Amino acid sequence: METDEQHSAALAKVEEMVSHAKFAMLTTKEKDGTLHSRPMATLQLDGEGNLWFFTSRSSPKIVEAHQQVNLCYMRTAKQDYLSVSGAAELVYDNEKMQALWSPWIKPWFPNGPDDPDLALLKVSIMGVEYWDAPDSAPARA
Amino acid sequence: METDEQHSAALAKVEEMVSHAKFAMLTTKEKDGTLHSRPMATLQLDGEGNLWFFTSRSSPKIVEAHQQVNLCYMRTAKQDYLSVSGAAELVYDNEKMQALWSPWIKPWFPNGPDDPDLALLKVSIMGVEYWDAPDSAPARA
Repeated sequence: METDEQHSAALAKVEEMVSHAKFAMLTTKEKDGTLHSRPMATLQLDGEGNLWFFTSRSSPKIVEAHQQVNLCYMRTAKQDYLSVSGAAELVYDNEKMQALWSPWIKPWFPNGPDDPDLALLKVSIMGVEYWDAPDSAPARA
Repeated sequence: METDEQHSAALAKVEEMVSHAKFAMLTTKEKDGTLHSRPMATLQLDGEGNLWFFTSRSSPKIVEAHQQVNLCYMRTAKQDYLSVSGAAELVYDNEKMQALWSPWIKPWFPNGPDDPDLALLKVSIMGVEYWDAPDSAPARA
């Protein structure tokens, strides 16, 4: 039960952060071994512990299934920081793309939810660490 | 010269971001292949393109010399995002630790600059990408 509680607490923290800080920085390891990050707009935390994003088929950030990634969320004014470790994969699901589409996404994907270049990026959360204040120890799950 | 100009522009962007957003999320690859990030207080961007941080000797985030890392800085209110790819190493330089010490660091390192557990983390900047606005292309250097 303790593990379940920790798991729930971690997901609650993810939900809280996502509601305040829509944008995460997604870090991936490139083929040459370097680590790169880029901003990603969070669409949804689903009931199974997956985070969903839109991405472009033509500039894949994820080159293999279940690729290890990190997502970080910050609320700098509150010194609130969240690290999500997870496994990422591209998902081509037109129904889900329509369901997750929202007008505020349009500046990044001007061609709308029917754009053939649009894909979903699903990150299955494997670990969460967060920092609420300078001297607090990170909570892990 | 163009490369020099791009290089200077990239470092100017790092300098600008660091002056506004002192805290970066440092992402490293762990032994098990997962990617983890944690907040780090930026102490200095030196004249040679290195970023400096304090860290703890007893909980090393960097386990090998020139380990690939990513630092991301965010100014969420401005939708301003910076990714720094670099090579990290631990540096044990008491003189530099004294020079970089500042009272605002104390909440994280309460034992001060003479703490034998204190070390410096140096990140040599190898690549910079930034996003100023939703529809802008990333600038690389």
